[in-house]
Amino acid sequence: MTQVADSGTAQRAVLFDEDRPLALACGRTLAPVEVVYRTYGALNSARDNAVFVCHALTGDAEASGPNGWWSTMVGPGRPIDTDRLFVICPNLLGGCRGTTGPSSIDPRTGQAYGLGFPPLAIADLVTVHRALLAHLGIERLHTAIGGSMGGMQVVQWLIDAPGEIADAVLVGASPRLSAQNIALSAVARRAILEDPDFHGGDYASHGVRPDRGLATARRLAHVTYLSEAGMAQKFSRAEPEGWASVDDGARWVAPAYDVESYLEHQAAIFLARFDALSYLYLTRIMDAFDPFAAPVALDPASRALVVSFDSDWRFGTAHSVALAAALRAGGLGTVEEHVIASPWGHDSFLLDVPAYIEVVRRFVAP
Amino acid sequence: MTQVADSGTAQRAVLFDEDRPLALACGRTLAPVEVVYRTYGALNSARDNAVFVCHALTGDAEASGPNGWWSTMVGPGRPIDTDRLFVICPNLLGGCRGTTGPSSIDPRTGQAYGLGFPPLAIADLVTVHRALLAHLGIERLHTAIGGSMGGMQVVQWLIDAPGEIADAVLVGASPRLSAQNIALSAVARRAILEDPDFHGGDYASHGVRPDRGLATARRLAHVTYLSEAGMAQKFSRAEPEGWASVDDGARWVAPAYDVESYLEHQAAIFLARFDALSYLYLTRIMDAFDPFAAPVALDPASRALVVSFDSDWRFGTAHSVALAAALRAGGLGTVEEHVIASPWGHDSFLLDVPAYIEVVRRFVAP
Repeated sequence: MTQVADSGTAQRAVLFDEDRPLALACGRTLAPVEVVYRTYGALNSARDNAVFVCHALTGDAEASGPNGWWSTMVGPGRPIDTDRLFVICPNLLGGCRGTTGPSSIDPRTGQAYGLGFPPLAIADLVTVHRALLAHLGIERLHTAIGGSMGGMQVVQWLIDAPGEIADAVLVGASPRLSAQNIALSAVARRAILEDPDFHGGDYASHGVRPDRGLATARRLAHVTYLSEAGMAQKFSRAEPEGWASVDDGARWVAPAYDVESYLEHQAAIFLARFDALSYLYLTRIMDAFDPFAAPVALDPASRALVVSFDSDWRFGTAHSVALAAALRAGGLGTVEEHVIASPWGHDSFLLDVPAYIEVVRRFVAP
Repeated sequence: MTQVADSGTAQRAVLFDEDRPLALACGRTLAPVEVVYRTYGALNSARDNAVFVCHALTGDAEASGPNGWWSTMVGPGRPIDTDRLFVICPNLLGGCRGTTGPSSIDPRTGQAYGLGFPPLAIADLVTVHRALLAHLGIERLHTAIGGSMGGMQVVQWLIDAPGEIADAVLVGASPRLSAQNIALSAVARRAILEDPDFHGGDYASHGVRPDRGLATARRLAHVTYLSEAGMAQKFSRAEPEGWASVDDGARWVAPAYDVESYLEHQAAIFLARFDALSYLYLTRIMDAFDPFAAPVALDPASRALVVSFDSDWRFGTAHSVALAAALRAGGLGTVEEHVIASPWGHDSFLLDVPAYIEVVRRFVAP
């Protein structure tokens, strides 16, 4: 059977239902769980060329193609080469881009779950990923790849199902958040929780959205995704035109510098495509992530590539060093580490940084 | 005449009035300008032992004593020794701790200025400081000292009035903000400006305060005042008790980790003593600060001590290095630089870090 290459049509699958609900780490169950995913390329007859892409906090299933969030990495001729690999990328459990999440309708009430949605763990996301893999009739992955929170999912998967992933690519990931990481997420969450339009998570039934809080979260996140040097390179520090003689307090305190306009632009784009409840849930699952707290037994036949960026201060090299050490201590066969020079901070994992792209290309190459 | 040492009673002075208004950098005038200040110790008969303390963004006139914000630095037996020095510390123009600011009553309207308050510059703050000095009959300062935005004021003063400051102590200061610095302040300002209780700055007449926005600003600021390592040392990363089995979404996304409780505590304290309009105005004046953009001519008889902390990522060593270079290029007589090892980030300037305290003590000693 020859399969025709898929260039990324969105597909849906109900992976858990009332008869077979998803058992969550918190002890509760969830049903139904519907997943939106995309595939790129063709699965070969040996079914051994599948690559699973785990997206980060605010990503979605559209990893590749002209509007794909990771088209530098995934596509024809890219390191994850869809001319020879079959790529699967689902929207995450808890997300808001098609897969079941806290703003989905709870069938028991006919209303959005809101904060009635159960707490999640990275392990729950991986359970859903694995159910999707089974649904597609694939037993073992050629490669699982993820940046930032995407990398955390791959790490959890290596632990939960040794042997299911041949090669893992972990970029800007962390085995355990620092107190600063938690604090930065906490500031964002509080801005959402305190937005008067949040209504205890029940904003859908009020016909509003906590856009102010979510915009604050996004602005803050963007500051932490870039480095100080990267920002200096990207944005003029010049005064806004006519600034020296501005004598209107309202105009003076409003956004005026280049970098302020950038943050406003990023916030506006984000509000059009993301949901506040998903932001709360998906940031919180990172805080508790600590998969090496208990001993793990990893597959000695698996390999991992661990990549960090020298200017990343959100999940920088110290996190990757700790991650690589934990993988080795856990028995993973090969762990290759690279620190890539790039001024673009945490954002680098999404960008066309040649040394980074090349390192992944070499690792993934047949 | 023997003066009795003052241990810090708050005093008031109207330094500018309708007959002699304050001429601001933006071109507007302001009157009246009332300043609340405190003094510690006694002015000697030669009037040459005066030390001026410039406070940072959220400080006030109470630099010393049991509740003083800088009692590690200022007091009997401290580096700024009030047993032999006469210390003056005013609340800043634009502040909210007694000195005229945007929440003061505009005599023309009988209402709070709000965003009708004129834009300010660091130079305006220095003009008011100098008026206070004249009011006290002091012509030349033994020392001017400030940390963070306080240091910026001292730098401006060195430029605006060569000869008026014998020795300057500049701690965690910057000659020019980075785009990242501006961005961090911008996120905070937007949270205040978008708070529905802000009412375009007219919140006083609505009988409310934009506490949510101001709390967001403070939480974010505190994350940037500490370093990642300092936070790791200060806060347990352990899961909140019973966390693994929390099955209530509302409880799960609410603050729970140590560092989250710390941020909530800091926000609550801050709301009780600070004003949102002052936050907008005093952060904004730092963005435009660029006193070495044009050539300066500093006093070759003056000395400066420039101190930074190795873990400060808000106004770190790179800022101090640039500042020291600019002071030297501007002709200042002596510029002494020190980088102090301390895990406490920008906050270090307020703390009892022995190497830092000792460096200032040696510099200030007779």
